[in-house]
Amino acid sequence: MNMTSNIHTFIGCDASFKEADLVIFGAPFDATTSFRPGTRFAADYIRMDSYGLETYSPYMDLDLDDYKLTDIGNLDLPFGNAEKMVQMVEETGSNILQAGKKSFLIGGEHLVSLGQIKAAFKAYPNMILLHFDAHADLRSDYMGESLSHASVIRRAWDFLGDSRIFQFCIRSGERSEFEWAKAHTHLEKFNFDSLESTLSKIGNALPVYVTIDLDVFDPSIFPGTGTPEPGGIFFNDMIKILNLLKPLNIVAADVVELSPHYDSSGISTALACKVIRELMLTMLDS
Amino acid sequence: MNMTSNIHTFIGCDASFKEADLVIFGAPFDATTSFRPGTRFAADYIRMDSYGLETYSPYMDLDLDDYKLTDIGNLDLPFGNAEKMVQMVEETGSNILQAGKKSFLIGGEHLVSLGQIKAAFKAYPNMILLHFDAHADLRSDYMGESLSHASVIRRAWDFLGDSRIFQFCIRSGERSEFEWAKAHTHLEKFNFDSLESTLSKIGNALPVYVTIDLDVFDPSIFPGTGTPEPGGIFFNDMIKILNLLKPLNIVAADVVELSPHYDSSGISTALACKVIRELMLTMLDS
Amino acid sequence: MNMTSNIHTFIGCDASFKEADLVIFGAPFDATTSFRPGTRFAADYIRMDSYGLETYSPYMDLDLDDYKLTDIGNLDLPFGNAEKMVQMVEETGSNILQAGKKSFLIGGEHLVSLGQIKAAFKAYPNMILLHFDAHADLRSDYMGESLSHASVIRRAWDFLGDSRIFQFCIRSGERSEFEWAKAHTHLEKFNFDSLESTLSKIGNALPVYVTIDLDVFDPSIFPGTGTPEPGGIFFNDMIKILNLLKPLNIVAADVVELSPHYDSSGISTALACKVIRELMLTMLDS
Amino acid sequence: MNMTSNIHTFIGCDASFKEADLVIFGAPFDATTSFRPGTRFAADYIRMDSYGLETYSPYMDLDLDDYKLTDIGNLDLPFGNAEKMVQMVEETGSNILQAGKKSFLIGGEHLVSLGQIKAAFKAYPNMILLHFDAHADLRSDYMGESLSHASVIRRAWDFLGDSRIFQFCIRSGERSEFEWAKAHTHLEKFNFDSLESTLSKIGNALPVYVTIDLDVFDPSIFPGTGTPEPGGIFFNDMIKILNLLKPLNIVAADVVELSPHYDSSGISTALACKVIRELMLTMLDS
Amino acid sequence: MNMTSNIHTFIGCDASFKEADLVIFGAPFDATTSFRPGTRFAADYIRMDSYGLETYSPYMDLDLDDYKLTDIGNLDLPFGNAEKMVQMVEETGSNILQAGKKSFLIGGEHLVSLGQIKAAFKAYPNMILLHFDAHADLRSDYMGESLSHASVIRRAWDFLGDSRIFQFCIRSGERSEFEWAKAHTHLEKFNFDSLESTLSKIGNALPVYVTIDLDVFDPSIFPGTGTPEPGGIFFNDMIKILNLLKPLNIVAADVVELSPHYDSSGISTALACKVIRELMLTMLDS
Amino acid sequence: MNMTSNIHTFIGCDASFKEADLVIFGAPFDATTSFRPGTRFAADYIRMDSYGLETYSPYMDLDLDDYKLTDIGNLDLPFGNAEKMVQMVEETGSNILQAGKKSFLIGGEHLVSLGQIKAAFKAYPNMILLHFDAHADLRSDYMGESLSHASVIRRAWDFLGDSRIFQFCIRSGERSEFEWAKAHTHLEKFNFDSLESTLSKIGNALPVYVTIDLDVFDPSIFPGTGTPEPGGIFFNDMIKILNLLKPLNIVAADVVELSPHYDSSGISTALACKVIRELMLTMLDS
Repeated sequence: MNMTSNIHTFIGCDASFKEADLVIFGAPFDATTSFRPGTRFAADYIRMDSYGLETYSPYMDLDLDDYKLTDIGNLDLPFGNAEKMVQMVEETGSNILQAGKKSFLIGGEHLVSLGQIKAAFKAYPNMILLHFDAHADLRSDYMGESLSHASVIRRAWDFLGDSRIFQFCIRSGERSEFEWAKAHTHLEKFNFDSLESTLSKIGNALPVYVTIDLDVFDPSIFPGTGTPEPGGIFFNDMIKILNLLKPLNIVAADVVELSPHYDSSGISTALACKVIRELMLTMLDS
Repeated sequence: MNMTSNIHTFIGCDASFKEADLVIFGAPFDATTSFRPGTRFAADYIRMDSYGLETYSPYMDLDLDDYKLTDIGNLDLPFGNAEKMVQMVEETGSNILQAGKKSFLIGGEHLVSLGQIKAAFKAYPNMILLHFDAHADLRSDYMGESLSHASVIRRAWDFLGDSRIFQFCIRSGERSEFEWAKAHTHLEKFNFDSLESTLSKIGNALPVYVTIDLDVFDPSIFPGTGTPEPGGIFFNDMIKILNLLKPLNIVAADVVELSPHYDSSGISTALACKVIRELMLTMLDS
Repeated sequence: MNMTSNIHTFIGCDASFKEADLVIFGAPFDATTSFRPGTRFAADYIRMDSYGLETYSPYMDLDLDDYKLTDIGNLDLPFGNAEKMVQMVEETGSNILQAGKKSFLIGGEHLVSLGQIKAAFKAYPNMILLHFDAHADLRSDYMGESLSHASVIRRAWDFLGDSRIFQFCIRSGERSEFEWAKAHTHLEKFNFDSLESTLSKIGNALPVYVTIDLDVFDPSIFPGTGTPEPGGIFFNDMIKILNLLKPLNIVAADVVELSPHYDSSGISTALACKVIRELMLTMLDS
Repeated sequence: MNMTSNIHTFIGCDASFKEADLVIFGAPFDATTSFRPGTRFAADYIRMDSYGLETYSPYMDLDLDDYKLTDIGNLDLPFGNAEKMVQMVEETGSNILQAGKKSFLIGGEHLVSLGQIKAAFKAYPNMILLHFDAHADLRSDYMGESLSHASVIRRAWDFLGDSRIFQFCIRSGERSEFEWAKAHTHLEKFNFDSLESTLSKIGNALPVYVTIDLDVFDPSIFPGTGTPEPGGIFFNDMIKILNLLKPLNIVAADVVELSPHYDSSGISTALACKVIRELMLTMLDS
Repeated sequence: MNMTSNIHTFIGCDASFKEADLVIFGAPFDATTSFRPGTRFAADYIRMDSYGLETYSPYMDLDLDDYKLTDIGNLDLPFGNAEKMVQMVEETGSNILQAGKKSFLIGGEHLVSLGQIKAAFKAYPNMILLHFDAHADLRSDYMGESLSHASVIRRAWDFLGDSRIFQFCIRSGERSEFEWAKAHTHLEKFNFDSLESTLSKIGNALPVYVTIDLDVFDPSIFPGTGTPEPGGIFFNDMIKILNLLKPLNIVAADVVELSPHYDSSGISTALACKVIRELMLTMLDS
Repeated sequence: MNMTSNIHTFIGCDASFKEADLVIFGAPFDATTSFRPGTRFAADYIRMDSYGLETYSPYMDLDLDDYKLTDIGNLDLPFGNAEKMVQMVEETGSNILQAGKKSFLIGGEHLVSLGQIKAAFKAYPNMILLHFDAHADLRSDYMGESLSHASVIRRAWDFLGDSRIFQFCIRSGERSEFEWAKAHTHLEKFNFDSLESTLSKIGNALPVYVTIDLDVFDPSIFPGTGTPEPGGIFFNDMIKILNLLKPLNIVAADVVELSPHYDSSGISTALACKVIRELMLTMLDS
């Protein structure tokens, strides 16, 4: 019988855990979403639609099939318990990183990133954080809750501290967030013009964590998200960003905030799949 | 200027709190939803689309305009904190009931009911609970969380105890839930054939709480919900149910689990509006 | 070349005007719609999707291909001018009826019926009107406008007078409409139980006009309409109705209020197509 | 790590092939669809959404977890080659049946059934075919192609012959199909009233194949299909049908024609999942 | 009780009429729409989704909370009576302008602008009109009706006369409209390259009216409109436009032609909200 | 009676075949589609929505009404038989070209182009092929089938041979396709920067065939397609392309791969209509 195996992974990610250089996993959680929930379905839709992709990237002239990748599935997360969720993501990320592999997380809402950033910080205490997003995510709390997708970068700052966080393309937030950022992070509004010079200052030696909130993209190309913000970047901008990131030592990354049910045309999931392919190849080629 | 006032209430609910006989409020919360979230938007969509309704019910030959009703808006609930949410709903329900008014809650997910059931129990310790739903909601916990929309009736049993809970039309659950119900609640599978005899046994003297999880309806007429279950009741069945409830002393009620974004046709919201109008008239006429 | 002709008609309606026994035409107008507009697209969607139907009805064991039918297209109606629209529909209906043919109108909103009812009244002054709808449509005016889809039957009464209008399945309206109907029309709420006895009283001799507002159907099977009202009839009920109508001399009919863009699944248009096929066969077989 | 395995099966179908009593597989093919294609996605959506189901059926008081079931995935079918597809499905069905297991196929369009019916006929030459559908599917060809989803039962008749095919609930077809059926199959229009007496005539001894074209359901509860036909059955009718089938020796079955992209609300997939659970339990309990 | 008030306004617009510097109101009217109607729902959806916005604009570094704004709700407009509608909008606009406040209108179709342009002309007879749109809107009539959303700018010219109307980004119209514009308005096709020089010629002294038909945006970022025209501007272009408008004395403005039901993803409403926030800040800061 | 004729053509294409300079026809076929089918509906939706267009192009300052065009409808194609389909398209294309007219084909999936390219090659053996697409379409076969929408350009090469095929904007394919192209076609990745120089090398003398797979556009502006690929061109890019093509002798063209049901907002169909209008004017003006 000539069957499609029932293994449900991102395309090209069918190595064993042991042999894999990069491990991908999903965190289906959306309990702190402030506007429209639904990101819990992202990882499964991304896996399913990734088979509409080729493994070959004409942008990088690289092929996923030339690497050893594994997709270990989704975490079984408790609904509505943000603290336990962060802890479980951290634990999984730590297991992957301590095995000497690169770790790649698919959200879920942005708060899931916090767990893996913690894991990366433990494994690489000199890491820096590159953050691409429409939102500053620097609130100290959201309606009284300190663990929120609107405060995830602020929570990362709690342990990373000043001058370790670099934010690009930010186009939404409260005035106080932009004010706070002036003292504590590098924050570029709207664009990523300062990315190249920033990276050349940092150099390629430090371990890097990349977190991409997909709502950094314009809602025209990425309508399937909780808080769409007009005025975002396009896919070709992301290609330019990734070209700049190529020399870096990216040890962990995440791609979050796809809410597939808000986009019946499926183009948001298609975009997420392609960003993941290109970002994985960027990490592996570096 | 001949303007539509900016007051955003359910149609016909524009009395002052003081003069009102029935108070309606919303609880936009969906953090423990096990499958598809989005019920947080229900109360606002219901208010907006209620203006497509008439205030007059040809079923009851009654008119909302003949009663004093007020809609006091939505609670400002914390995202992702189930415990605090239940407490805030309880407090609001208590305020309304202690002012001698009937209280009507619009969810949100089913867990919001727990707060108002607690409030009603405090005000009316001999109350009974009538529960119309596709799901038994009797799990002791859901993935380790005891506060979940799948365990809300079990949590109500924690303080109501045996023989106070009456469940109808239940068509989904784990085997263990149906087993547990045999000892602790009255549970009729699929239908409400036993409703009439049950009510005649109870009599009309006791204060009654009615909780309607709208997924008790067939998904054909109510697609906009998180966990659609084929084989449900239709609108005319609800009219029959409400006719049976008319002699009762219903002191509080709720209507939960509309997730309007899952139904782009709007028929789910239209159904919810009409159920609310008919249930309010049932409570007021009794 | 084996081409599908570019002629865009309802399936099976390709006779010439001259030879046709029944003439179908469309009136794409929705300017007085009180809630959600869009019925202007109905006739074109119905024509397009009618090719998913067979011409054969297993319900009646009759085939459209055994009759001479023609579809003469849509009227070019002015946007936003209700008076001129009614006049143009009347003129077209008159042309068809005076040529000794049966006339079949596809709306558009319900107000379009008024034109053809006038035409039928001129041609058959002793006609009676059978009305199937969720709404009474008996308002004297709607926000000051006397020509409105919510007052179309009242406007027909202006010239038909008492005891000529028979309304079935009505489940929505203001109290005053139901009151007014008691004196001036036969109005059955919710059902059509009185249809059989009514028809036997009237006899088969009088010319009959049938107007079907498709929102008489339950929104579950007909979500694509401006004002969905839960608690409606199903397709098999319509088959029963049409069986009762078969002995009548139906000289004209209309089917109105499909708003196809509100139903991305297409089932509303599929229902409309089948109702039109069955109603045409009912008229032709009588 | 507490992970959801990446194995992508229908819920409860995680036994090994060897130990399994029933084997489920998918055939993602829709090339001969006459109206709206898209059934190729059915099996994957059904697997994904089946996790919204419980394994326990309150209808049957049976649990999938009490049986050994396996889901072996999808066939890798060639796009647009109907002949090869039928052959590949037949081969897989034969492998399963010859291993002494029950075979359960998820379509795809209805033509996929032909392969498994052939396999069943080879394994059980005295088999009978029970067919539940909106459409007769008895065309000798469709626009010149003999292999079409509109002729699948006619093709099965080619080798099964007269008095072996029993069709229920048929409400659409050309006049010639209904005429042909009079001589060659048992065909009940619209309903399944004759099912009980038919089964008692046949007895429980013969091996039975059950093919369910999901468009047998009313489009209100199953909008996600290529050719929606108003006037169908509801979920509770299917429960009645399955209760009648329980005593039979069902050796193979299929469930076809879900087109999930046509129903953004997801209720069609929810229905398909539940029909599959109930039909599998019916087969296993018999 | 910690409630969200039931007041339903655009975010940040909760001053009293008396203290407000800018007054916003809605005109839910779409009766003359030539293609796809539905703009009547725009103002309510904009209010509801505006709470997904912050009051702070990182583009302008200004905050709505620093100003006094009021949202007085929607006009109660007659369905299908364009003349009366224009008159009612004019009256409301006049009341606002004569109270020395800036007036901001949310459509509705583009014809609603005519009423407020009239009001502004009466209050500021030397006003000029800046028009951003995909369509020229210069038809002398549309199918015989002189009041149409396709002729609104022509109707404004009837009283404003030559050299007072400046049109940008126009990419659709009949040849005769473009011909007519050569003699009577400033019309730039496709772009707004001439905006800067035009404004410097006019100077900052004259009172300015700004009308934005949102279909000036590309359909990719604004699909929810009646007549989508590929090739439009993007959000960042609008930011550039508003920066150029900042020195002007804008006394009144409108934003029209959102049809929210045509965009189930909600990105069109999100865009409209942000354009309104930025345009209000532009008016207030000038 | 002032009726819209029932003739269902692309706007402005109502000349007779005899007098027409350009003939347009549809090929509703999608049987070899590899991911999401549905392009069979494209031609009918394009015709219907083309009436939302003007016949006048402000881009070219040309009007369809100044030319003689005819739309002869759709081919009656067999479902699921790719070979016969290609043959039927070829035959129709040949009839048109041999009558000395330009031929314009609307798909359907991209494989339909093969028939017309064959016809053009027979009529103009020195023709060259300009190909605009997201995908290389150069696979030798797709899952064993040599006739596939993923191999259509490879099949054209079978008879056109080397240096006759020019591909632009290609951003997806297997590595082997890009490798193969290096030897056999001119393939520019992502952009069309080389178009101008390429055309100047070729000169204006040769007959040209233009095939536009609409998924060359970015999914943001064209979500309604089977295989959306982020990073595509926008409408204004197409205008630039067509300006470059204007001097050429384009004898035949096609526009393929619109799948209208995947885009409930309708912007994809609007784009297709405008591309067709502009491409027809480009062909006629040259």
